Amino acid sequence: MNDDSSIARLADSLKAQAASLRPGDRLPSSREIVQAHGVSPVTVSKAVARLVAEGVVTTRPGAGAFVAAPPRPRETDPSWQTVALGGRVVDEAALTSILQQPAEGVIPLTGGYLNPVLRPTKELGAAAIRAVKRPDAWSMPPRAGVPELRTWFAGETETTQNDVLIVSGGQAALTHAFRGLAAPGDPVLVETPTYPGALATARAAGLRVVPVPADDGGVRPDQLAEAFARTGARVFYCQPTLQNPSGATQSLERRRQVLDIARAAGAFVVEDDFARYLTTTPPPPPLVALDTHGTVVHVLSLSKITAPSLRVAGLVARGPAAARLRAAQIVESFFVARPLQETALEFVSAPAWRRHRAAVAAELDERRGILLESLRRHLPDLRVELVPKGGLHVWVRLPPALDEPALVERAQRAGVLVSPGRIYHATEPPGPWLRLTHTAASHRAELAEGVIRLATAYGELAADAPGASSAGRPGRRGS
Amino acid sequence: MNDDSSIARLADSLKAQAASLRPGDRLPSSREIVQAHGVSPVTVSKAVARLVAEGVVTTRPGAGAFVAAPPRPRETDPSWQTVALGGRVVDEAALTSILQQPAEGVIPLTGGYLNPVLRPTKELGAAAIRAVKRPDAWSMPPRAGVPELRTWFAGETETTQNDVLIVSGGQAALTHAFRGLAAPGDPVLVETPTYPGALATARAAGLRVVPVPADDGGVRPDQLAEAFARTGARVFYCQPTLQNPSGATQSLERRRQVLDIARAAGAFVVEDDFARYLTTTPPPPPLVALDTHGTVVHVLSLSKITAPSLRVAGLVARGPAAARLRAAQIVESFFVARPLQETALEFVSAPAWRRHRAAVAAELDERRGILLESLRRHLPDLRVELVPKGGLHVWVRLPPALDEPALVERAQRAGVLVSPGRIYHATEPPGPWLRLTHTAASHRAELAEGVIRLATAYGELAADAPGASSAGRPGRRGS
Repeated sequence: MNDDSSIARLADSLKAQAASLRPGDRLPSSREIVQAHGVSPVTVSKAVARLVAEGVVTTRPGAGAFVAAPPRPRETDPSWQTVALGGRVVDEAALTSILQQPAEGVIPLTGGYLNPVLRPTKELGAAAIRAVKRPDAWSMPPRAGVPELRTWFAGETETTQNDVLIVSGGQAALTHAFRGLAAPGDPVLVETPTYPGALATARAAGLRVVPVPADDGGVRPDQLAEAFARTGARVFYCQPTLQNPSGATQSLERRRQVLDIARAAGAFVVEDDFARYLTTTPPPPPLVALDTHGTVVHVLSLSKITAPSLRVAGLVARGPAAARLRAAQIVESFFVARPLQETALEFVSAPAWRRHRAAVAAELDERRGILLESLRRHLPDLRVELVPKGGLHVWVRLPPALDEPALVERAQRAGVLVSPGRIYHATEPPGPWLRLTHTAASHRAELAEGVIRLATAYGELAADAPGASSAGRPGRRGS
Repeated sequence: MNDDSSIARLADSLKAQAASLRPGDRLPSSREIVQAHGVSPVTVSKAVARLVAEGVVTTRPGAGAFVAAPPRPRETDPSWQTVALGGRVVDEAALTSILQQPAEGVIPLTGGYLNPVLRPTKELGAAAIRAVKRPDAWSMPPRAGVPELRTWFAGETETTQNDVLIVSGGQAALTHAFRGLAAPGDPVLVETPTYPGALATARAAGLRVVPVPADDGGVRPDQLAEAFARTGARVFYCQPTLQNPSGATQSLERRRQVLDIARAAGAFVVEDDFARYLTTTPPPPPLVALDTHGTVVHVLSLSKITAPSLRVAGLVARGPAAARLRAAQIVESFFVARPLQETALEFVSAPAWRRHRAAVAAELDERRGILLESLRRHLPDLRVELVPKGGLHVWVRLPPALDEPALVERAQRAGVLVSPGRIYHATEPPGPWLRLTHTAASHRAELAEGVIRLATAYGELAADAPGASSAGRPGRRGS
């Protein structure tokens, strides 16, 4: 029997059973239901689907069906909260777009993580299993972090174990740094364009973000010195290696200039070394390794080269700043869960770590090459002014009069996600740009297809808007 | 051969090998060294110990020896930071004392976690292994948390999945709540005495903490209403169940009064439900379950009933407040690592969860009984005015003129850690108190021994200071 009435009867019976359980409790398995009710598996699956549709149960692939939380009948009117919460705003829009998961069939040329196929998922799992088998796995770690992991980060940054604080990933590290080093209302200098996540967390900390122009070699020293002088800022945030989104890497000489300028201004440099492992070309030493005065607060994250949920980063600082950052972490969130720290340590201590790094860096070179070649072929109007020597993306200049939001939206309708340039600017952008990520797609062939879809959107936009068309293709400049 | 010269030769050889490796790299195992050098295991262990003493390697029990980070020869002078950092202070002293690990042989009557022998370490390990074997274990979870875990927290709090945000433990939840609901400079009302971690995080958020007196039934409604009226506060922090440190549980009627008063003031109540699972006596429903207007922001942590490193909590809110808290989490730290969320979900979904809860709650009753009986027998001068119906500790009033810091210090010298009452007060304490925890000790017999040591310290103090002696034992009042 597998008709409507038997499905309805089974659904009623399961509903009664669910009513006797608590939200989150597990229903019997399909097999148990088949046996208990003498029905076919198809009947079971249709009856369960009906209960899911009614909101009575939720299902969890591979784990079964669970009693759903009851709908809340009571009417709540939280409009009074608007007064209590006051006029502050926490703007997560840019980050939400970065963390967005693409819909089925849509090609992501967005995002800041490796596609799952490039992640060391198996090796992380093995590392985690070793980690949680330790008898002290769930105990409190030393407050600044597991000592051997701190030593490892110290080795990577040419500092000492005592300088390292283990924090919950790079974003938390930036939050700690901004909140710890500056007070609400203080200015903070940033390169422009820059990482939107840094802009968002600086603003959430109540800081006033002041952009400083950059060239192909990173932030411009003359402008940096002037910005310090004009604003009295005590914090400068930058990414000296494979800057996001421009791809610029500061030379050793530029790094020394930046340090000297910050030092003269009595200011901290927050060095976000997110791309350290994302290249086959060894970059110059990080600023923190050149720093002899405690000027640099360094952020080294592991999630970029591994996977989003390995939320472990090293936050390196010296002197009173280190003491403050450590105190703030205890007060704000105690410490990073020991199993995550031990997993990270197991992973970077194993031979898999170097193999993985080399494999990813080589794959990035391949993918970047394909993306650039596809752009040259299908979108000759777009210009890549700086070919980065690594990293996850390229920064693409659009023709000056092009409507950037319209292109992003049309691209999405054409089945490809791209990041609008404006979210990388703290203030008015100098013109339309896109950031194109080549690591979020699941395989290389998707990159060319993504660019073709973007070209379709671009062509439509040019055809639809005669003004934009002529302005958008001014003699095919730059191609 | 196992003489000094063979140890020295091996140490030199290993030192040369370490110099060719990078900090954090693993040295060969003891067995490999034995084979390669033809020496005894004892020689290896002595040579390695020598290198540890010289700072060349660090060892990790069960994992081997690793190259240590080199000492940093460069002199850094970070004194300029003092100006850049400004006059703000993040005070972690109270939390550091709470998170302090006792020295060997010292009995801890302090701390806020279960002793390792009471933790479900094996079950958590099994849950974690199931969690990390999922193919998506290291991927980004939905930003507000794994849906099934949110549903579970919703079931526990009689709310809906959409109301729940998964955060990195209870302390992070309080930080989110205070920063999200109030702006720097705003007042926040707290019960007095109260949890020092809440005082610390509220102050780190720049809030002005205003204490409100409590009685045996929790915060006093008349005083709460007056404090709202006087300060214009929009946030009240409280623990309605088994309040820390007093042990008071608000009755259903008191809960309704608190809600009505907060609602009339247009204010949020941050409900810290840390002790929900730490009792054999079911408490009244949480405030959040009684709330129909989005007044309550509820914190439900899993680390108290499990282990410190299961850093997972549910933060429940509705309306614009929920939106702000969710946005703030994305901006500040993205999301909670998926493996931790899945581990928590696996654990609370398994039969082990209810067994563990029941076993812990029963053990707490036993331990509290032993602690109270030991106090009656060995320290009759001390008064427990409210015998809590659960929780991790008792709140003990000392004779009025007793020197509380001196007793805490003498107790530590006598081999027992106790928490001074003053850290639980936002302002001047009304008199000397202690908080005594009965769950940090590794077995029950330690509790009586801890109280005997405390009695020794108390007796010494009375003998040393004749003034304190007479004041400290006013006719054995209260006994």
